[in-house]
Amino acid sequence: MKMSLECPGCFIKQTIRSGRLFGYSRDLLWELVKDCGRFLADISPEVSPPQNAVALYEMISLRIGKEDPFDELKKESTRQALAIYSELKAKIQASSEPLDAAIRYAACGNVIDYGVSSEFDLMKEVSQALKIDFFRYEYEKFTKRLKNADWILYLGDNCGETVFDRLLIEELGRPVIYVVRGGPIINDVTEQDAIDAGLDKVAKIVSSGCKAPGIVFDWCSEEFKMLYNTAPLVISKGQGNFETLSDEKREIFFLFKIKCQVVSQFVGAPLHSMFFGTVDGI
Amino acid sequence: MKMSLECPGCFIKQTIRSGRLFGYSRDLLWELVKDCGRFLADISPEVSPPQNAVALYEMISLRIGKEDPFDELKKESTRQALAIYSELKAKIQASSEPLDAAIRYAACGNVIDYGVSSEFDLMKEVSQALKIDFFRYEYEKFTKRLKNADWILYLGDNCGETVFDRLLIEELGRPVIYVVRGGPIINDVTEQDAIDAGLDKVAKIVSSGCKAPGIVFDWCSEEFKMLYNTAPLVISKGQGNFETLSDEKREIFFLFKIKCQVVSQFVGAPLHSMFFGTVDGI
Repeated sequence: MKMSLECPGCFIKQTIRSGRLFGYSRDLLWELVKDCGRFLADISPEVSPPQNAVALYEMISLRIGKEDPFDELKKESTRQALAIYSELKAKIQASSEPLDAAIRYAACGNVIDYGVSSEFDLMKEVSQALKIDFFRYEYEKFTKRLKNADWILYLGDNCGETVFDRLLIEELGRPVIYVVRGGPIINDVTEQDAIDAGLDKVAKIVSSGCKAPGIVFDWCSEEFKMLYNTAPLVISKGQGNFETLSDEKREIFFLFKIKCQVVSQFVGAPLHSMFFGTVDGI
Repeated sequence: MKMSLECPGCFIKQTIRSGRLFGYSRDLLWELVKDCGRFLADISPEVSPPQNAVALYEMISLRIGKEDPFDELKKESTRQALAIYSELKAKIQASSEPLDAAIRYAACGNVIDYGVSSEFDLMKEVSQALKIDFFRYEYEKFTKRLKNADWILYLGDNCGETVFDRLLIEELGRPVIYVVRGGPIINDVTEQDAIDAGLDKVAKIVSSGCKAPGIVFDWCSEEFKMLYNTAPLVISKGQGNFETLSDEKREIFFLFKIKCQVVSQFVGAPLHSMFFGTVDGI
């Protein structure tokens, strides 16, 4: 997906939201807005939003003076999700179709915005996870592919969500390579974040080599590209990965919540709806 | 009113909307977005949105290569409004309270967005004008002031709306000075636009001396400032004038539709609600 003309306004909103998250004063928020103006003056309309987002969040990090300003938030998200890991594990195991339940919880992991949710909201989201209506739910197609796959490439997304990914990985019954970002960006999962969520116990953790909140092949490592090209089955979590991979030729099972109008229009699905499947027919 | 952190995103939307109005291609729209980035990099958070808007629309004019890119749209708006002038005049004269009816039609003139409305929509808006619920409607206070005012300063806003202003001016029964922008900006009324709407037949037309889509005193002429300071009664049309005059000490009767969240929050009134009165108690 290329940049949409809706994206610049969203980048400004994200910038201000980040500044507010770090308790910025009005004056400092306006400095961030001006930074964002300089970023927009030099934006590339021909690439995906996550590719442009790298320069934006580097600018935010520079202004805030921290390489990983979302670090504490990420740790808290992981802690919150780990606190309900056993409860969810038991629910999945008690389900008549554990793999189906695990997919739904993993989708739910993408729903929760740890930045604004309290413990109570988290439990509410989780309690409704198994009842979510998906816009697309290609479970049968997925299980067919899974049967013939001797390993799986799993593209991670956000912290906290990682714990829900772990629950799904435990139900896949195949060796999994879990892909993390090449460096800290927003609340996306890095290698250490994945270890914090216990993913090293259930998968091999590999970096994409790329810091973008998505998969930008030009910036990815040779190791990652080799894995991507040879993986019998790819699961891609989150909207950022979808935005960067939606035009790919190879089959990918996307699992994410549609969080903005641009993706909603691209997919032809309502805003906030859930998606599990390939882009066939979109 | 100072700039809000909501305004930068709105400036980007306005820029793209303008480009689309002039049939811009995707590539050219992105050039406008980059221009807007450069504008935001240098924005002044301590002034009002209309004051910042001057640099924005000068940038748009420069990119489009026309000093008054909205010229045709303005002429069409005036033509559409003039086409129903006689009908509205008859309705006002047939009303039991013609001044009240004329105020409501003048408010209605601020409702209509000529850029997107068809003739049919215009008639629909007009047919509902007398039934509009105002958030504030200080009619009694206004008529008291009107009784003691030997002349009125009327601050104009958009083209097309001008014809509705003319209908109200005809009911005021006092000499009126109608203030227009010092130069073309968006679809705001300039001297020639006011003449096109027939305002020269019912009022003396005076320029604010300032090109902003509002009243920025630092940029206004001495003539306008003298008129403003001595006018026994001031009527101010539209949100742009409100944004620049809301902190003024002198009494002003504002007549406008609340068109954005920032003004809605400032006034404490719902978005899209109508306002007629002073800022007392806000």
